[in-house]
Amino acid sequence: MAKIALAIHGGAGTILRSQMTPALEAEYRGGLDNALNSGWSILEKGGTSLDAVEAAVCALEDFPLFNAGRGAVFTHEGEVELDAAIMDGRKLKAGAVTFVKNIKNPVKLARLVMERTGHILLAGDGANQFAEQNGVHLAPDEYFFTEHRWLQLQEAIADGRVQLDHTAAKPMGTVGAVACDAKANLAAATSTGGMTNKKFGRVGDTALIGAGTYADDVCAVSCTGHGEFFMLGVTAYDVAARMKYKGLSLDDAAIETIAHLTSIGGDGGLIAVDASGNITLPFNSEGMYRGFTTGDRRDIQIYR
Amino acid sequence: MAKIALAIHGGAGTILRSQMTPALEAEYRGGLDNALNSGWSILEKGGTSLDAVEAAVCALEDFPLFNAGRGAVFTHEGEVELDAAIMDGRKLKAGAVTFVKNIKNPVKLARLVMERTGHILLAGDGANQFAEQNGVHLAPDEYFFTEHRWLQLQEAIADGRVQLDHTAAKPMGTVGAVACDAKANLAAATSTGGMTNKKFGRVGDTALIGAGTYADDVCAVSCTGHGEFFMLGVTAYDVAARMKYKGLSLDDAAIETIAHLTSIGGDGGLIAVDASGNITLPFNSEGMYRGFTTGDRRDIQIYR
Repeated sequence: MAKIALAIHGGAGTILRSQMTPALEAEYRGGLDNALNSGWSILEKGGTSLDAVEAAVCALEDFPLFNAGRGAVFTHEGEVELDAAIMDGRKLKAGAVTFVKNIKNPVKLARLVMERTGHILLAGDGANQFAEQNGVHLAPDEYFFTEHRWLQLQEAIADGRVQLDHTAAKPMGTVGAVACDAKANLAAATSTGGMTNKKFGRVGDTALIGAGTYADDVCAVSCTGHGEFFMLGVTAYDVAARMKYKGLSLDDAAIETIAHLTSIGGDGGLIAVDASGNITLPFNSEGMYRGFTTGDRRDIQIYR
Repeated sequence: MAKIALAIHGGAGTILRSQMTPALEAEYRGGLDNALNSGWSILEKGGTSLDAVEAAVCALEDFPLFNAGRGAVFTHEGEVELDAAIMDGRKLKAGAVTFVKNIKNPVKLARLVMERTGHILLAGDGANQFAEQNGVHLAPDEYFFTEHRWLQLQEAIADGRVQLDHTAAKPMGTVGAVACDAKANLAAATSTGGMTNKKFGRVGDTALIGAGTYADDVCAVSCTGHGEFFMLGVTAYDVAARMKYKGLSLDDAAIETIAHLTSIGGDGGLIAVDASGNITLPFNSEGMYRGFTTGDRRDIQIYR
C-alpha cells in the first residue's frame, strides 16, 4: 500500500494580505477544507487518485469565491467561459475542454473527453455539443453570475485592463488538485474561469497538458498563475522532466521549475505529488490558496 | 558565426509508397524544394531563424498538396479550420492560433499574436477578430477549396471515419520548419488543417507550445503525427528536456523522444535543430515529407 496523499489549490491570485479580513479568510479556508474532505474521503476508502482529484476540483468549482465553475470571472462580452483538464498518470491519458459555457463542473466534462473520445482537447461550441450529447449537467447563466465578478468586469472595462482574476495587483485564479492513491497511481486536475475582461479568444495554460496540468507515473502537477509563462515554461511537465532526466526529488524538481518560472518573469505556483505520496506546493507570488493532507498531516494556508 | 541550418516537413501522413507515382512524387518534392529555398534565402543573407521558419511555412501553407493553409482538410461541417504556432527560441516567446478561418497564412497570424499581444494562444472567432483588426491577409472559402480534400470528406462521412489527413492508413498532415541562424538563434513553426471530418472542436498538438512546437536556446522542434500522442508525450519540449537535463545530443534526445512516442502508441515524427546547426528528422511512420539544408548539405526525402 502506497502512502495516500492529496493536495489542492484555489489559485495563486490571492487577495492581498492587507485586504484580507478574518471573516473572509474563514470563508476561503472553509472552501479549501471542504474540497480536501471531498477528495480525501475517496482516497481513504481505497478509491482512485482520478476520482479524488475530480471530486476535489468539483468542490472547488462549486465554491463561489474561486475563479472556476461557479464564481468564474466574466469575459469582455460579459460571458463565463470555462477551461478544465484532468490527467490519469497510470494510463497516461488526459481530457480537457476550453471555452465551454454553462457547464456546471467542467472537470467532469474533461473526464468524459478522456474516457469517451479519442481526443484530448475539445473547444467551444463543439465541446458544448459533446457535453449535450453525453448528458452533462448544464447550469443556467444565473448559476454562474456572482456580483463581485460582475463589478470586477465593469471596473476592468472602465480601466481598459485585462485581469487574470480580481483582487491582487497580478491576480491569478484557478483551482486544482493532485493525488496519489493506495496503488501509487497519480492524477491531476485543474479548472479555471480565465481572465476578467479577456478578449480575442485567449486560451490559457489550464487545459493544456504539460503546461497547466500533467500526470504520469513519476508525478502529478497542477499549476496556477499567469498562464502564458506556464505555457512557455511547459511548467507542469517540466517538473516531471527534471525528476526523470535529472533524478531530482519532487521537491527539488518543483523548486527548480518555479525558479525558472521566476527567471522568465512568470508569477504563480503549483502543487505536485509523487508516487511515494510526497507533496510540494511552491509558489513565487504573495500567496496561494492551498491545502494538503496525507492522513497524519493536514494543513491549509493562504500566504507564505 | 554559427552554422546556419534549416529543416522542413510536410507531414508524416505521406501517401503510401505503393500509391505514389513518379509525377506526384515530383510535385511533392517541388513543394518541399520551394519551401527550403524560401527559408534558406533569408538565412543566407544573415536573416533571423524566425523570419526563415515563417517564410518556409508560408510556402508550405501555399502549396495545395499539404494539409495546411491552402489544401487543408475539411471538418465534418465542410469547413476549413486552421491551426499554427511559431516560437522564438532566443526570446522564449511564442504565438499560436487555433480554429481560425479564411486566414491565408496562419503562421503569420501566429507571429502577430506573439508580437502584438500579451497572449500566446488565440482561438476561433476571437482570433479571427484579432486578425481583422491587424489587417491580416484573408482569403475566400474558394481559395481553400481543393477537390481532393472535398472528396476525402465525403468518403470519410460515408465511412464514419475521422481522419487526420487523407491517404495512408494512419495519415497525419501538418507542415513545419526549424532553423538556426548565423547568431545561433533558434526558431520553430508549425501549421495544420487538422483532421478530415473532425467534430466537437477537437484541438490537436500543432498550436500547443511544448506539444507540437517548441524552441529555446537549446533546440527548436516541429512535430507531425497523431496529435493526441504528441500532447500526452509533450513531445516537442521533451526533446529539449532530454538535452538540458540528461545532457544528450540533439540526435540522441530526438531518438529517445520518438522511441517514447512509439511506446505510448503514437505515430509520426519531428524535425529539430540545435544551436550548433545540427539537424535531426526522426519518425516512426512509413514516411515523412521532409527536407533540410545546411549550405554544404541539402536533401529532400519522403520515405525511410
